[in-house]
Amino acid sequence: MKNFIGVDWGTSSFRAYRVVDGAIIERRASADGILTVPPGGHAATLSARLAGWPSDGAIVLSGMIGSRQGWREASYAPCPADAAAVAKARIAWREPGLGEITLLPGLVAHDSRGVPDVMRGEEAQVFGAMRALGVEVGMFILPGTHSKRVEVRRGRVESFATYMTGEVFAALRDHTILGRLMEADNAPGDGSGFKRGVEEGAQAGPCGDLLHRLFAVRTLGLFGQLPAAELPDYLSGLLIGAELSASPSPAESGAYVIGSGELTKRYQKGAEILGFALEAAPEDCVVLGQSFIMDHAI
Amino acid sequence: MKNFIGVDWGTSSFRAYRVVDGAIIERRASADGILTVPPGGHAATLSARLAGWPSDGAIVLSGMIGSRQGWREASYAPCPADAAAVAKARIAWREPGLGEITLLPGLVAHDSRGVPDVMRGEEAQVFGAMRALGVEVGMFILPGTHSKRVEVRRGRVESFATYMTGEVFAALRDHTILGRLMEADNAPGDGSGFKRGVEEGAQAGPCGDLLHRLFAVRTLGLFGQLPAAELPDYLSGLLIGAELSASPSPAESGAYVIGSGELTKRYQKGAEILGFALEAAPEDCVVLGQSFIMDHAI
Repeated sequence: MKNFIGVDWGTSSFRAYRVVDGAIIERRASADGILTVPPGGHAATLSARLAGWPSDGAIVLSGMIGSRQGWREASYAPCPADAAAVAKARIAWREPGLGEITLLPGLVAHDSRGVPDVMRGEEAQVFGAMRALGVEVGMFILPGTHSKRVEVRRGRVESFATYMTGEVFAALRDHTILGRLMEADNAPGDGSGFKRGVEEGAQAGPCGDLLHRLFAVRTLGLFGQLPAAELPDYLSGLLIGAELSASPSPAESGAYVIGSGELTKRYQKGAEILGFALEAAPEDCVVLGQSFIMDHAI
Repeated sequence: MKNFIGVDWGTSSFRAYRVVDGAIIERRASADGILTVPPGGHAATLSARLAGWPSDGAIVLSGMIGSRQGWREASYAPCPADAAAVAKARIAWREPGLGEITLLPGLVAHDSRGVPDVMRGEEAQVFGAMRALGVEVGMFILPGTHSKRVEVRRGRVESFATYMTGEVFAALRDHTILGRLMEADNAPGDGSGFKRGVEEGAQAGPCGDLLHRLFAVRTLGLFGQLPAAELPDYLSGLLIGAELSASPSPAESGAYVIGSGELTKRYQKGAEILGFALEAAPEDCVVLGQSFIMDHAI
């Protein structure tokens, strides 16, 4: 698909891209996440955000906009899923004043015990990253409140898992004793706390050991082994180190990170400490993924 | 020590025992934890709580009362520590109107990377449990906000580790997305959620896997695999199962639980699901431990 408007519409953010002849020629971003849109207000919000852009082309949406809390509910395509399987589960309709709207589905994966895991929006980023990087195998990590780790083989999403790393970090820092010794001004550390955290979070040991390792945030502070300014980074390192060393190891195949800004760099630094590289996918790869998925629509 | 007043004075609770000829003849408990006592008010609080009890004997205190936030600061005895080593690090003074006060120290242990861990008060309970149960080897688990797991060999505390199980449970339930699908009325579950949680929390896998397994609280609810009433118990089971399968395994030697009430039963049930027994120590074993430690004072 060479000419369309691509929208990545998540819980707390809205990003739109105008694509002409396969290239992004305009971008718009706002805080109009689906949680801020009143019931029945999605078409009006979208019209307002896209004002001034040609309204006769296709509009492709991905992300939480397709969830039960979004505009309309698109199903989850089951893993393993290639681009054609994702495209097949899309829903589409004609919206007065906007044109043809296509809403891409999410993905669902089940582990060996039958526990389901879900994502919405990240699959478009992963297909786009594959295209941008020219790879069809590897581990794709999308850091965030709920980090996603996506296994790709032969150009399809084999499986994925959600890690609550970001949300657990915030809950522990703000609502447990671990935050007490941290400095309120949150002065940036010198990197020593993060490095130590990554190493200790990645140590071998069963999953319950994490409940113990966390307590070191307190004792290293109490015993003066780490200054207060290093404690937030130590906790961040512990959790990122634990996530990066969860099974299966991203170090075993090529590993890539999708995202932008500080958090992406933090994951790259964590991987470097653990001895492997996390190659960054280009920003805005979601649009490339939406286009690729739509090209496989039957 | 056959005749004394033993006090277990923690952060949020105060428990006093009047011991005559080696037997507890009176108990008092209140919510006068050290956090509620104004600076300099410890003697007055203690006098008020012990009013009417003979004031000419020895008073032995253990718990957070010996911390920097307590009455006076007693040091930490280093592990491995036998009763004599604990007794040696005690501090004592004569308090007008109260008599001879002895404040027992805490314990400190270091792991292979030099990370310290600390406890105050639990060591007296463990020595008491050893005496009450007639054992000198085993794993003693003290469930709580910060669970302690204490390894005992030849009657001494070899090492121990803190697990933030209780506090992590509360932070995740109250301050992350995992609490959203839980029922507000917190109806008691039928046990199926707890059992599944324990089994999945105890599965083999590196420590970072816990960050992923937690997300099942959400997905099992979303997909209707567990009713909302079972979700709190599933989360509790996940964390207790993870703690009980942390290294070293409590199943390898005799395993004991020290505590009272619902939480102790929950740990025993968790151990049973995992195929080993957690024998409960008698309540009030802290007094037996204080007495045993003081009998080893030089």
